[in-house]
Amino acid sequence: MNTRSHVTLLVGGVGGAKLAVGLASILPPEALTIIVNTGDDLDHLGLHVSPDMDTVMYTLSGLANPTTGWGITGDTRRALEMITRYGGPGWFGLGDSDLGTNIFRTALLREGKRLTDVARQMSSALGIRHTILPMSDDSVRTVLDTDQGRLAFQEYFVRERWQPQVHAVHFEGAAEAQPSAEVLQAIDEASLIVFGPSNPVLSIDPILALPGLRERIRASSAPCVAVSPIIGGQAVKGPAAKLMAELGIDVSPVGVATHYIDLLYGIILDDVDMHLCDVVSRMNLHCIARRTLMDSLVDKIALSEHLLKWAEEVFS
Amino acid sequence: MNTRSHVTLLVGGVGGAKLAVGLASILPPEALTIIVNTGDDLDHLGLHVSPDMDTVMYTLSGLANPTTGWGITGDTRRALEMITRYGGPGWFGLGDSDLGTNIFRTALLREGKRLTDVARQMSSALGIRHTILPMSDDSVRTVLDTDQGRLAFQEYFVRERWQPQVHAVHFEGAAEAQPSAEVLQAIDEASLIVFGPSNPVLSIDPILALPGLRERIRASSAPCVAVSPIIGGQAVKGPAAKLMAELGIDVSPVGVATHYIDLLYGIILDDVDMHLCDVVSRMNLHCIARRTLMDSLVDKIALSEHLLKWAEEVFS
Repeated sequence: MNTRSHVTLLVGGVGGAKLAVGLASILPPEALTIIVNTGDDLDHLGLHVSPDMDTVMYTLSGLANPTTGWGITGDTRRALEMITRYGGPGWFGLGDSDLGTNIFRTALLREGKRLTDVARQMSSALGIRHTILPMSDDSVRTVLDTDQGRLAFQEYFVRERWQPQVHAVHFEGAAEAQPSAEVLQAIDEASLIVFGPSNPVLSIDPILALPGLRERIRASSAPCVAVSPIIGGQAVKGPAAKLMAELGIDVSPVGVATHYIDLLYGIILDDVDMHLCDVVSRMNLHCIARRTLMDSLVDKIALSEHLLKWAEEVFS
Repeated sequence: MNTRSHVTLLVGGVGGAKLAVGLASILPPEALTIIVNTGDDLDHLGLHVSPDMDTVMYTLSGLANPTTGWGITGDTRRALEMITRYGGPGWFGLGDSDLGTNIFRTALLREGKRLTDVARQMSSALGIRHTILPMSDDSVRTVLDTDQGRLAFQEYFVRERWQPQVHAVHFEGAAEAQPSAEVLQAIDEASLIVFGPSNPVLSIDPILALPGLRERIRASSAPCVAVSPIIGGQAVKGPAAKLMAELGIDVSPVGVATHYIDLLYGIILDDVDMHLCDVVSRMNLHCIARRTLMDSLVDKIALSEHLLKWAEEVFS
């Protein structure tokens, strides 16, 4: 099998979006489908906000703020300032252009459109030719049991700056939600399934929590590989390392591989963790060490090329 | 009766808001209630937009764009640009700060709050101490039969720049709507009722179309006076003159007085129309000619002083 013929990438936000850009720079539109976590979605001020979807969409369209990785370059916050002036909540940082996205998405959803179709329409309008799929058209909401009580995802992540200690993570609605037909097809038709360098617990697990999805990945003829989001015991960005430690997961590519062990054929870890390839190999997984930090577009494309070439060599 | 003790002003947008500022500069908060047309309200992109309410609120708080009379000074349109980029409608010009207002209003209404309470909360937050009341908490929608078919108010006013020829005006929902208890109280307790220099058909008539409102004004012990929005046969702004002509109303203070004849005790018209005071007097109305153009704050206060002084002399 040509592992390059249809890559299906599962991601959360910033880290996964970077790999998506690299892969999209190499693969034609029909050869890449990006499945995005929507467990981070929230209803905020009556708007349906999809932070991970937008991060991927903004990154692929070149709109993303390169400093933060999320939001739109040069965006302003006039609307939010006005809302706080009225006494409304200001903790969730929506820029003005970003609000345009969320207002329009919400309006389309209210017309009865599926999130999947809305995502297609909006990403096409931004010139994106590769397919970005929300993991489901149904509501799944990540909530966390913490030392400050139960928190909705964005309360934990944005409002509390992921400082509370997490005891457990739940995906509300996941058991009743369905992966969309498009998501199932992207897995069935995949030649390679990739878990992006995203938070395993908060970004990939919500996708895997959808009924039947793990089984579908296992049943797929495509090998499934992961790019470790942990480099030298640390997360590139966000709470992955802190959270994994709190949940008793080894904060290393080994911990990541173990987390996905029922699904995984191999893992790419960073050069600094090369010594861990021995451990991973003893878990009966393929392993390769490469530079996984993706600062520049060159980095993103290089890692994507390494990933595709390695998969081709090992799994074809 | 001291006619200054409680002035109740009925208005639409820009012109009425100017007189509201003048009166608010003179009268203490408890002596002025502003009842605002909501027939212009629309549901746009899922947001409850109240153009006249916001014009009055922005004008009284000093936020209003002095060039247009509506919207917020220096506002940007990043969200709207983004929405049009997605293929969404761009004809209704909502600025970013203005969107903050509309998002927050909509969120409060979705919580089940009354528009009256939302208006109080939001105008207080902007430092406004006088009471601004939407004419009703129920939906009334002005629609126009035109040579281009039936148009919703903002389609006619903004999208088509009030160019279609109007055959008839309807206030959908008015018969089932109720003026709020606060509106009725403001009329019952008024010492003077003023129809602002607003479009008689599109701004004041929707208010008067509410069940029982005309009767309540007639039953009130307060005299009712109008400030003519027509000066020298022209509207200061907007479609008043064009529309009055199309509906067969004399485009003059006489036409305005005739339009309100069942309610009116007197009218202020502009110096340039002073000769029409004779005609108005023969209609058994009090009449006074003053400068009614309100370019500066001095103009607004001066006209308000003239209005209050005249009412005091004639009706006390």
